[in-house]
Amino acid sequence: MVDVSAQVRPGGRSAKVRAAVHRAVGELLAEEPSETLTIPAVASRAGVHATTVYRRWGSAAQLLNDVATSRFSGDVVVPDSGSLGGDLERWMEDVATDLTDPDTLALMRATIGSGPEGGCACTADRHEQLSAILERERSRGGEAPDVESAVDSLLGPLYYRAIFSARPASPDWARRLVDSFLAAS
Amino acid sequence: MVDVSAQVRPGGRSAKVRAAVHRAVGELLAEEPSETLTIPAVASRAGVHATTVYRRWGSAAQLLNDVATSRFSGDVVVPDSGSLGGDLERWMEDVATDLTDPDTLALMRATIGSGPEGGCACTADRHEQLSAILERERSRGGEAPDVESAVDSLLGPLYYRAIFSARPASPDWARRLVDSFLAAS
Repeated sequence: MVDVSAQVRPGGRSAKVRAAVHRAVGELLAEEPSETLTIPAVASRAGVHATTVYRRWGSAAQLLNDVATSRFSGDVVVPDSGSLGGDLERWMEDVATDLTDPDTLALMRATIGSGPEGGCACTADRHEQLSAILERERSRGGEAPDVESAVDSLLGPLYYRAIFSARPASPDWARRLVDSFLAAS
Repeated sequence: MVDVSAQVRPGGRSAKVRAAVHRAVGELLAEEPSETLTIPAVASRAGVHATTVYRRWGSAAQLLNDVATSRFSGDVVVPDSGSLGGDLERWMEDVATDLTDPDTLALMRATIGSGPEGGCACTADRHEQLSAILERERSRGGEAPDVESAVDSLLGPLYYRAIFSARPASPDWARRLVDSFLAAS
């Protein structure tokens, strides 16, 4: 995470604009999740000129990706419970809980719709965290599955449920995914 | 599925407009997948008045859902190979192949971004097909897992990879998901 306070000094207008624009994106998505986000609407809500937003972010898609990158980075802590099962369970509970927040889902849905092909700013950090959890188990001397199969078996069902299905991705169910995954590995 | 042919008769302008508008949506998404789809742009491409599109579909989000519903319904055939494993493997290969099409992905990404919360027109038919495959195995006298666990273990990783990851969801890999799922069930 960038230390925003370090940028805010006399003339730290840039950081203030960024904060206002990011906040405006969140507010608009929360109010009208199925409406299309436009730069003029964001600028008007943030109280800045649309040209400022265009100059800095280029397009609504790039702005959404910037917001998603900063929202979905460093928000979930990688646990260290002493065991792979414990770490994965705690982490999956946290990610599942994050995905029950309607504002989180609205941002994720909007980012997928407007994001570049082949990847999404909303899960890049999740892959790194999962990698770190598996690596820690190896450094304990244990065996750990590869990250691809963990992504398939854990993040796959979790995000599918959050995005495509009306059934909630509960922390309990997420813990059961971990149990099945470790039993099968 | 609505029998569109029944609507096409002298004066079947309604069906023609629908076809032109659906085609325009597909073209625009293929050309500019990360641009926001607007009703004026669709109307202009389809050669109809924007008011016609607004009157019939209401919003870009509802139009996208209509296109996705008709695109993702009845496009994949439920196989009958004689065994649950064979049926699931063939069906998963077909769904995975469908997801390698950039136009399919563009429509799916756009629909998620603008769709109503809690569900997506792009997977409703997939759940029904999976249910039919499992039900057929039961009618053969076999045991079949419940549809929820099949959605978690099969559609979860498949759609996650298609939407969130840059790695391709190959038919081979999709077949291996079926093997692991049946081994664990």
